[in-house]
Amino acid sequence: MTEIPKPAVVLVQPQMGENIGAAARAMRNFALEEMRLVAPRDGWPNPRAEAMASGAGVVLEAATLHDDTAGAVADLTHVYATTARPREMIKPVMTPEAAVADARARLARGERVGFLFGPERSGLANEDVLLAHTVVTVPANPQFPSLNLAQCVLLTSYEWGRQSSEAPLERFDPGPAGPATRRMVLHLLDRLEGELDDTGFFHPPEKRPAMSTNLRNLFLRAPLTDAEVRTLHGVVRALAEKRRRAP
Amino acid sequence: MTEIPKPAVVLVQPQMGENIGAAARAMRNFALEEMRLVAPRDGWPNPRAEAMASGAGVVLEAATLHDDTAGAVADLTHVYATTARPREMIKPVMTPEAAVADARARLARGERVGFLFGPERSGLANEDVLLAHTVVTVPANPQFPSLNLAQCVLLTSYEWGRQSSEAPLERFDPGPAGPATRRMVLHLLDRLEGELDDTGFFHPPEKRPAMSTNLRNLFLRAPLTDAEVRTLHGVVRALAEKRRRAP
Repeated sequence: MTEIPKPAVVLVQPQMGENIGAAARAMRNFALEEMRLVAPRDGWPNPRAEAMASGAGVVLEAATLHDDTAGAVADLTHVYATTARPREMIKPVMTPEAAVADARARLARGERVGFLFGPERSGLANEDVLLAHTVVTVPANPQFPSLNLAQCVLLTSYEWGRQSSEAPLERFDPGPAGPATRRMVLHLLDRLEGELDDTGFFHPPEKRPAMSTNLRNLFLRAPLTDAEVRTLHGVVRALAEKRRRAP
Repeated sequence: MTEIPKPAVVLVQPQMGENIGAAARAMRNFALEEMRLVAPRDGWPNPRAEAMASGAGVVLEAATLHDDTAGAVADLTHVYATTARPREMIKPVMTPEAAVADARARLARGERVGFLFGPERSGLANEDVLLAHTVVTVPANPQFPSLNLAQCVLLTSYEWGRQSSEAPLERFDPGPAGPATRRMVLHLLDRLEGELDDTGFFHPPEKRPAMSTNLRNLFLRAPLTDAEVRTLHGVVRALAEKRRRAP
């Protein structure tokens, strides 16, 4: 996946410095970089924002300050307004998932995009939503949809990270030992069955094939490491020797 | 999509009551219901958890209390351990997205599953991870991966909600007025072009087809409501009358 530009996060009239800091952390968690602040209530810079941001201070340092929302989105070609509740204004409504996919497509073809987030208490005013092309609403439980500012920024940033990630959906990390080869596991099974044959475990004899299949399935379906197979060899040896020493 | 059972959220030795309350809110935001608490530091019930949970108190009221992690997961058939950092123990590692998809498949075939979350300060202990089948790690920015307990529960719950949602990815809500029909928009365009013909707007005449196409594309690609088309009719009439009245 080629590197594409990233969306701006526009906080409109944020009230608490702590929430600006928490939003910066959420952005940095998923590698969003560009914060724009519209008329923060307590002025700017804000020591409480800096204290909360801690390791994400780099986002605050690069943040730009704007007098009004129109100024903050002036250079953008597509604006998304995050709102919790339906609006009377007529706009397409997207989930964060769909909005981020839409934003990625726009960014890839050279557009500049941004997501608006409203003040903690009231959310975005209608005149701010009017500046947006698209409304974004998190599909939360209708019986309890309330998400705070930093949580909304976190979920949007997470969607950005999720859709940008090159990570495979699942991986098995065998650690420094490395994964066991099929031959190693089969050798272990042969040894185990040999010892079990000596004990009379496979009884009656006509059940031996089914019992062997069960045993082999058990060990062959697990992702085993080299070291684990060596450990199991030791277990088989130890049990077998104990039995041989028994009277 | 048929209703399937839901995963349990297991908080292992949570420290701050506020975080238990915030986790309950995050669960309720995305309709997760079953919280299990393993030896919370400050005992249980915890007034601080209740104060923070507010509208999500129903999750706390239904929460079960357990002495140890083994007891909390005893009835589960598949356990996911959320950890921020790689572990020496050998387990498959999944993103929240893949883990929730895996959990949904297991739940749909009758399994019972749960997600473990560790204490705020230290995360899950190795002996807790050992009880899990699968490790879940949020694919955060490697330069700033730190997420707190409630944020981890929120992202996992969000994935549950996102993958459970029947909501379409995009919808256009035309409001009470309803969307405009194609006929209404075309009638508006005919009227507009008629008025513009009178003004000499389409000049030179050989450019008329291209100019008309541009104008029609502009209005036909936008999702217009009934009320908006009526408004535009009014705009055309007003401008035309002003022109007629002009000397």
